Amino acid sequence: MSDDTRYERGRERLREVHGDRSLATIESMGDLGRLIVEVAYGDVYSRPALTTRERQIASVAALVATGRSSQLPVHIRSALKAGLTTEQLQEVIIQTATIAGFPPAMNAWSTLKTITSEGEGVA
Amino acid sequence: MSDDTRYERGRERLREVHGDRSLATIESMGDLGRLIVEVAYGDVYSRPALTTRERQIASVAALVATGRSSQLPVHIRSALKAGLTTEQLQEVIIQTATIAGFPPAMNAWSTLKTITSEGEGVA
Amino acid sequence: MSDDTRYERGRERLREVHGDRSLATIESMGDLGRLIVEVAYGDVYSRPALTTRERQIASVAALVATGRSSQLPVHIRSALKAGLTTEQLQEVIIQTATIAGFPPAMNAWSTLKTITSEGEGVA
Amino acid sequence: MSDDTRYERGRERLREVHGDRSLATIESMGDLGRLIVEVAYGDVYSRPALTTRERQIASVAALVATGRSSQLPVHIRSALKAGLTTEQLQEVIIQTATIAGFPPAMNAWSTLKTITSEGEGVA
Amino acid sequence: MSDDTRYERGRERLREVHGDRSLATIESMGDLGRLIVEVAYGDVYSRPALTTRERQIASVAALVATGRSSQLPVHIRSALKAGLTTEQLQEVIIQTATIAGFPPAMNAWSTLKTITSEGEGVA
Amino acid sequence: MSDDTRYERGRERLREVHGDRSLATIESMGDLGRLIVEVAYGDVYSRPALTTRERQIASVAALVATGRSSQLPVHIRSALKAGLTTEQLQEVIIQTATIAGFPPAMNAWSTLKTITSEGEGVA
Repeated sequence: MSDDTRYERGRERLREVHGDRSLATIESMGDLGRLIVEVAYGDVYSRPALTTRERQIASVAALVATGRSSQLPVHIRSALKAGLTTEQLQEVIIQTATIAGFPPAMNAWSTLKTITSEGEGVA
Repeated sequence: MSDDTRYERGRERLREVHGDRSLATIESMGDLGRLIVEVAYGDVYSRPALTTRERQIASVAALVATGRSSQLPVHIRSALKAGLTTEQLQEVIIQTATIAGFPPAMNAWSTLKTITSEGEGVA
Repeated sequence: MSDDTRYERGRERLREVHGDRSLATIESMGDLGRLIVEVAYGDVYSRPALTTRERQIASVAALVATGRSSQLPVHIRSALKAGLTTEQLQEVIIQTATIAGFPPAMNAWSTLKTITSEGEGVA
Repeated sequence: MSDDTRYERGRERLREVHGDRSLATIESMGDLGRLIVEVAYGDVYSRPALTTRERQIASVAALVATGRSSQLPVHIRSALKAGLTTEQLQEVIIQTATIAGFPPAMNAWSTLKTITSEGEGVA
Repeated sequence: MSDDTRYERGRERLREVHGDRSLATIESMGDLGRLIVEVAYGDVYSRPALTTRERQIASVAALVATGRSSQLPVHIRSALKAGLTTEQLQEVIIQTATIAGFPPAMNAWSTLKTITSEGEGVA
Repeated sequence: MSDDTRYERGRERLREVHGDRSLATIESMGDLGRLIVEVAYGDVYSRPALTTRERQIASVAALVATGRSSQLPVHIRSALKAGLTTEQLQEVIIQTATIAGFPPAMNAWSTLKTITSEGEGVA
């Protein structure tokens, strides 16, 4: 596959998982954005062995555990979009608390609450 | 539910998820072990909204992302036991690499390889 | 001890250590909040071998070292309430700088300054 | 105070807190070792507002929370030497688990157990 | 060298690398600030084996990898001042993404963009 | 550029920077290894704006700061190969200590010492 093909596939996958706004944000990040589109979405997110729903469980858990709060809202929204319920996302957060402690879980819980109380919500 | 009941439920759940050896290890950790049995397994792991398989996706992703290498072998074995395939665990590791970088993913890949090449393996 | 008893004990302990506002915040966090009340305060914070003052030294050091800035203000206030002086908290921050670097210590120093310059202050 | 005076003070303080073996290890680390002796022990550890015992609570909590396993044995021994009991160190570990998760606490618990079961033990 | 001499040297070095505003901020941080001036700038930043430009590559990479976002703007500005181009700083960020993941790199990219689009910019 | 071309370029770049043994290790890591070869070396390490020597300063600093000890020996060797002297690498480690604390710097110092005292050494 050529770079252009992988980029195009990544663009579409990113848009499918996260929406137009996220795609625009990433595409404004020059070469870093290109790498993310190609690698994270053209390659990793496009691999079939895990469903998007399963990928979101992993992404949310990893982001919560490492305290990567800036990217958590986007991934929580994508998780809801991929079929995880609010209750299931609460469970992922509680599960991660046993591994990374209560503080990051508390931040994530608040973020999830803000997003779900807005219904759809915007980033 | 009384503490004793929660402890007993936790013991059985820990044994179910991780096996006898892990249970013995945790039970040798005094009050910290008791807390883990009651909280992580009597409470968190016993909650129904996520399957064990889904919980293991979250646990493995969080452990890889935070570089908690000591606990990863046990959780990888439990993930395989809960129905995740080697290929799916490889995907969880690759997914986490996009969030936490290649080094922790490389360590986890090697750990997974060691475990699966032993077939069953021991903790 | 039953869950209800532990929850009640945790509520009172949380209120004693952190105040009414923190208790309300935690109690708004559904099952995560319940876990924190029961485990962190009904169990851990209620154990006698360390004084609250000593627990706060540990909590502040751990929060500073891991950069858990969201929870630091509450714990700094509780540390002052438990008998640590501003100067002693500055020492905990400087001590943690040798272990975790200057950046998180700088953030914590500013947080402590904001709180103590307000006198009592609110969360 | 001149550098030499601070270095000498740091040497003595390091030896007092951690022992001859640790001092020798640090002194074999060229300019990094010199910085540690001067800064961490000639300056920070020599400041009066916290007792050594209190400093060890902070150091152990910070090391456990950040997973700095290599330096933990030395600091646990120094904590015991400074007057913390095994039970109190167990409490510091359990306290840190609520902030940083169970995995690093489990590693620290095992380390503490190894050291205390050796009685005095050597680094 | 006496403490006063090292402090003076540190003050000048800090001012040279980061500017007057940063110096004022650090000097408002009591004993922590004094330690930073003496150790990080009077000692470390004054050592000749690396150029300031090379030190900034290391500092920016370390700050991005550990997610120390509060201190990143100052160090990015100092990196530009020391001769690194915007493109080179983008490369440092992309390089760090392979080690610490995309999220911290994305935050850093945005910070760099904000600073360079302001031209000179203020802290 | 097609995937095959990027992979080939990555292979050669990896070999050039880290040597045959590292290439073999990475190539034994299935799809994760492929991603590393293509992304980290076919793309990132092949970009011209930073020299390999500058990239190694960034990589070593990031690895030390995040405590990624498993990958540090390889990157230290590559740094020496790329033209950084032992003294300069010591400076990078000391610089990183101001950002991430003394413990990871101590581990890195020992690793560097082991490698340089072996002369060439093997991974």
